[in-house]
Amino acid sequence: MSTTATFQVSGMTCGHCEMSVREEVSEIPGVQVDEVDHGSGTLRVSSDQPVDEAAVIAAVAEAGYSAQRA
Amino acid sequence: MSTTATFQVSGMTCGHCEMSVREEVSEIPGVQVDEVDHGSGTLRVSSDQPVDEAAVIAAVAEAGYSAQRA
Repeated sequence: MSTTATFQVSGMTCGHCEMSVREEVSEIPGVQVDEVDHGSGTLRVSSDQPVDEAAVIAAVAEAGYSAQRA
Repeated sequence: MSTTATFQVSGMTCGHCEMSVREEVSEIPGVQVDEVDHGSGTLRVSSDQPVDEAAVIAAVAEAGYSAQRA
């Protein structure tokens, strides 16, 4: 069974931005990116373990954007 | 001596977009990208030969944007 977490990401303007966020967040062990949408700023991830919120926010920052738990 | 040509590019929203345009246009033999700016939509290139306008426009289209000679 997997848990899902949704984040609000600021600053994404296009599909390239989505791709950057997807790449960084996908590098977190056990975390899968289910949705990234620059229009709504939505990032939805899932994991078999409880999602490490701080790790996701740090990965988004690494990509150059800011996220908060939605 | 090199010639310069400026194009107006529509649809670039961020630095990733600039990078995509730069990569495609740089693949045109003899053409150097001097400036790409998503804010103003400016693409400025130079070449030792007269710049092949159609090749530049096609390269920008390949990157997913549209250009016209400014």
